[in-house]
Amino acid sequence: MIVVLRADASQQQIDHIVDKAKELGLKAHISKGEERTIIGFIGPEDVVRKTPLEIFPGVETVIPVLAPYKLVSREFQRQSSVVSIKEGVSFGGKKIMVMAGPCSIESYEGLRKIAAEVKKAGATILRGGAFKPRTSPYDFQGLEEEGLKYLSEVGKEFGLTTISEVMDYKDLDLVSKYVDILQIGARNMQNFSLLKEIGKMKKPVMLKRGMSATIKEWLMSAEYILSNGNFSVILCERGIRTFETMTRNTLDINALIVAKEVSHLPVVVDPSHGTGQWKWVSKAAKAAVAAGCDGLMIEVHNEPENAFSDGPQSLLPVKFAKLMDDLNRVAEVVSREM
Amino acid sequence: MIVVLRADASQQQIDHIVDKAKELGLKAHISKGEERTIIGFIGPEDVVRKTPLEIFPGVETVIPVLAPYKLVSREFQRQSSVVSIKEGVSFGGKKIMVMAGPCSIESYEGLRKIAAEVKKAGATILRGGAFKPRTSPYDFQGLEEEGLKYLSEVGKEFGLTTISEVMDYKDLDLVSKYVDILQIGARNMQNFSLLKEIGKMKKPVMLKRGMSATIKEWLMSAEYILSNGNFSVILCERGIRTFETMTRNTLDINALIVAKEVSHLPVVVDPSHGTGQWKWVSKAAKAAVAAGCDGLMIEVHNEPENAFSDGPQSLLPVKFAKLMDDLNRVAEVVSREM
Amino acid sequence: MIVVLRADASQQQIDHIVDKAKELGLKAHISKGEERTIIGFIGPEDVVRKTPLEIFPGVETVIPVLAPYKLVSREFQRQSSVVSIKEGVSFGGKKIMVMAGPCSIESYEGLRKIAAEVKKAGATILRGGAFKPRTSPYDFQGLEEEGLKYLSEVGKEFGLTTISEVMDYKDLDLVSKYVDILQIGARNMQNFSLLKEIGKMKKPVMLKRGMSATIKEWLMSAEYILSNGNFSVILCERGIRTFETMTRNTLDINALIVAKEVSHLPVVVDPSHGTGQWKWVSKAAKAAVAAGCDGLMIEVHNEPENAFSDGPQSLLPVKFAKLMDDLNRVAEVVSREM
Amino acid sequence: MIVVLRADASQQQIDHIVDKAKELGLKAHISKGEERTIIGFIGPEDVVRKTPLEIFPGVETVIPVLAPYKLVSREFQRQSSVVSIKEGVSFGGKKIMVMAGPCSIESYEGLRKIAAEVKKAGATILRGGAFKPRTSPYDFQGLEEEGLKYLSEVGKEFGLTTISEVMDYKDLDLVSKYVDILQIGARNMQNFSLLKEIGKMKKPVMLKRGMSATIKEWLMSAEYILSNGNFSVILCERGIRTFETMTRNTLDINALIVAKEVSHLPVVVDPSHGTGQWKWVSKAAKAAVAAGCDGLMIEVHNEPENAFSDGPQSLLPVKFAKLMDDLNRVAEVVSREM
Repeated sequence: MIVVLRADASQQQIDHIVDKAKELGLKAHISKGEERTIIGFIGPEDVVRKTPLEIFPGVETVIPVLAPYKLVSREFQRQSSVVSIKEGVSFGGKKIMVMAGPCSIESYEGLRKIAAEVKKAGATILRGGAFKPRTSPYDFQGLEEEGLKYLSEVGKEFGLTTISEVMDYKDLDLVSKYVDILQIGARNMQNFSLLKEIGKMKKPVMLKRGMSATIKEWLMSAEYILSNGNFSVILCERGIRTFETMTRNTLDINALIVAKEVSHLPVVVDPSHGTGQWKWVSKAAKAAVAAGCDGLMIEVHNEPENAFSDGPQSLLPVKFAKLMDDLNRVAEVVSREM
Repeated sequence: MIVVLRADASQQQIDHIVDKAKELGLKAHISKGEERTIIGFIGPEDVVRKTPLEIFPGVETVIPVLAPYKLVSREFQRQSSVVSIKEGVSFGGKKIMVMAGPCSIESYEGLRKIAAEVKKAGATILRGGAFKPRTSPYDFQGLEEEGLKYLSEVGKEFGLTTISEVMDYKDLDLVSKYVDILQIGARNMQNFSLLKEIGKMKKPVMLKRGMSATIKEWLMSAEYILSNGNFSVILCERGIRTFETMTRNTLDINALIVAKEVSHLPVVVDPSHGTGQWKWVSKAAKAAVAAGCDGLMIEVHNEPENAFSDGPQSLLPVKFAKLMDDLNRVAEVVSREM
Repeated sequence: MIVVLRADASQQQIDHIVDKAKELGLKAHISKGEERTIIGFIGPEDVVRKTPLEIFPGVETVIPVLAPYKLVSREFQRQSSVVSIKEGVSFGGKKIMVMAGPCSIESYEGLRKIAAEVKKAGATILRGGAFKPRTSPYDFQGLEEEGLKYLSEVGKEFGLTTISEVMDYKDLDLVSKYVDILQIGARNMQNFSLLKEIGKMKKPVMLKRGMSATIKEWLMSAEYILSNGNFSVILCERGIRTFETMTRNTLDINALIVAKEVSHLPVVVDPSHGTGQWKWVSKAAKAAVAAGCDGLMIEVHNEPENAFSDGPQSLLPVKFAKLMDDLNRVAEVVSREM
Repeated sequence: MIVVLRADASQQQIDHIVDKAKELGLKAHISKGEERTIIGFIGPEDVVRKTPLEIFPGVETVIPVLAPYKLVSREFQRQSSVVSIKEGVSFGGKKIMVMAGPCSIESYEGLRKIAAEVKKAGATILRGGAFKPRTSPYDFQGLEEEGLKYLSEVGKEFGLTTISEVMDYKDLDLVSKYVDILQIGARNMQNFSLLKEIGKMKKPVMLKRGMSATIKEWLMSAEYILSNGNFSVILCERGIRTFETMTRNTLDINALIVAKEVSHLPVVVDPSHGTGQWKWVSKAAKAAVAAGCDGLMIEVHNEPENAFSDGPQSLLPVKFAKLMDDLNRVAEVVSREM
């Protein structure tokens, strides 16, 4: 931690800060420049982070030296993590995983039809929401346990791994019973109670980036899970909120690139939410693969006009199959495979 | 709902949309302009909102006519709501309520000292966090039930109403047992499970705006609570996330003004989080009162250097007392009182 | 400048950086921490700012110690600047200046009517655009020189100081000839050619904050003017672009507070653009005065339905007069006067 | 234009609006819904756009039906534009154009070295700034005409087309004399005086998106140029400003996709500014090609440590050559070539 003093800081103020360093068991390293005196706190930064040095008299700013995340960082683990879900299904290896399916699970038969299509096109994982976080209380809120049952059965029938969102601590056991991968949605990225509980489980979890979360905050939320013992974490970039109104969200391709660099965790991309319109999904998906993603989450629906949610951004199965073909070729160029 | 067609929309496509309107029990009203045909859907807009008309062939855009919120709107209830907490404590009347206290409850004695000061200065409600949503898992997470007990006891001793944050469904009964007003934090504004449960209670609740929530989304989250039966909702503007880095958040004074206009619910402002530095809090608080807020939430700490959290934005008691004096005079000018 | 090294930085890399410091005529101050080595560059920071130290091998991040602005800062000049325009008209003193008038100058007679009203209500300065920066090429672009003549004549008739926007280097002499204060609009905040030329003049200038400019960038744009010799600069906060769509802009009251603290320049607020709707202007104006602004710029039109631009955010004269009354009382409370 | 009335709008208010429509030479089409009356204005929307209907008594909101841009839209011209610069150099065809070179032109010899490298690696166009828009007045401002001469000479020597930024109306002739393509920088996207003048020229121009410009505003700025007669416009996405601080800008890959859909103009991407760090440029460039860009602008410098500007985001020639190889293969997959 580096403490920059005001131009007019007094010796007494400097002493007060140095005393604080000692009190915290740290060394203070004073460096007098031409216009400012700077005090470096030497020792574990965590200890200082909890002390509001910025309000000590004479202090102008306090600058952290180290990133606040640890277990998720490349410094902690140099090589990329491979998060294994089951035989042949893992994130972070050469193969790019594709999770596809409807936004909401609407019926057993409906889900079966879509599952058959995405399986045929080459997806490995079936997605489908049973608990839906909807902005409006008057919108469809999901089939809950009934939906999870459908997902589990249909997954088994087609040999597809399953993923579904868990919105709350209280549903954690229920959702875990039925699905292979837990999904934490963007709105729950900082639901710390939920993160801590999932951290105590062994279940793989995909953590979506909050819609206005910085990359650092996203990694700190992952850190909540890892620091509680669960290292099977997959990050998911799904677009952020900006001033732009023609798109639902702004897909942040930089975030994929940066997260892969500073963290060892696998990073997947959701171009459906990242754009918000089916006709933009394919190009965004190709961009994500070209930029190095470890997986994709894509909404597919055979009758988007009748979808209970996210119809506008769902691909028809035929377009999804075409996209999978294209992605195969892009993947090859960046030494990956679908 | 207004459906704008593409310039090249065919008669068959128009018929398909009109059929959909009939299927939904609505009337379709066609209006052919010079460059575009427009179809108005007449009848309850909710029904249409669930249908993804934007992907019907020939459709260019779909424009909602009505705001999606109902119970929270001024159309539903013309006069401003007064949310009564207890004898002499209510939000939305002439008197502007002040909630003050430490960010985190740290100890019984510490809380007592601060409570004595804020009481003396004229605050009506004591704030203090027992469950803390912290970005880092390595930061202080709150005293939990122990903290709530302190808050309750100290509140009683000084005759102060109490407010504290509830972060999760599972802690709802616990927090409700000890405090007078539940606080939903910015990170939980769209924790819909929590909103629904609180909606089923009678407990007054203060709903903070999410850090990147639009005013509309904020009102929709309040709608979750009202539509489940609980009308004792207070809205709280606490600053939003923007590109600015010199301040912790950007206090959105417009949001206060707009929310007061479109909704009948009381709106309070948190200038501590809204700015992030104690030296900016007083000016921002005065601005909030001048612009018509129904209450203020202000962090106060007698030893900010040793605060477990938010030290930098906490006012010293002496500065808080000075601010209360100033606010009294600003309030008078806008026909309110503190 | 502080250079934080990567955990694995080699001695050779450290030497390379130290050599660079020497080459720049600075001293390098090495501080080895537990996890990181830090090198402080001691001497004038400007010299280092131009060197991309972040790409030197072994470097993790580079942290500036000093703010990049100088002449505009409170460190350069402790007491607040008073920018005098003419006898009795100055910004930064006890009296809060009010600039009012139509968005665009539309006709001589129209301007006279509005001028008479704003004068009567207590405004000191008449605003009106002759060169209009419009998003669409098909919108009204201003009366240009003809408009400036009207403004100048009407200003004289009513004893009102005048302000109008200059959009381009080439119009600088023309606009200067007719008006008392030059206005640089939000879209031109980083039109550096324009800033430099104005810097060489003696004319007072009001610099609007760009719609997504940080406070630092805004001050740096002012620095362009001061560093070229013109110290008569007034800053104007006019709302920033955020994700919110219910308001035209998000009035950033924090920016007013922070700019007043770090800079000695006067800061005015434009609640018309800051909100975008006349019915929100009065509350926002009161907030600005309560928070310490040195002036206000308010759009007033006697027939907003027929205004050529910004009708929605223009106040009727009667409402403006009422607002002036209210502002008088708010100003008094914060020891200012209108 | 659709005018939505308030629930309590009176017949008199409706008549007033209908009268206005007639006055403007338009037809008003009234549609009474269950909760709201809606009035459609039939006829050219431009006429109405200038009238502030939102403040007419009884009006709740006004909704435009048509996009405000015309000449740049796909409705105006279905097939994609090909902007030809010279024999073998055109934007919008099968071949993806690469513009590469230093941020600033620093010396004749320096530019020659870089030009030789980018030519060898396969770039077609040489970039280099002679007029530099710098946030700080104390930073290097460019070599001006001297730099342009170097660019022109070096371009000729290596058979490279040239592009350079023009910041101001007054430098337009000068810059045009030396370079093949004019560049309008992000800070000047709404410098309307400049846009109009360039619109009157025949010179090809690359228009960078403003750092917080919506896609619509970006297209409207292009409309300024086309509507003045110059159709040789290339759009350039270069990253937008968001809340993220780990990257210099947020590259908006959606903007590329959407602009290509709604406009016939070619769209290029600048991954150097879009990310801000050389190590992220290659992945972002691949993403841009996979998503369908018509060109790339990439900063290359042989000695980034000594670059006068943008060193951190400049690729070394060897890395640029490697990237060109990779891009070739990505281009092929999306049926393009480099």
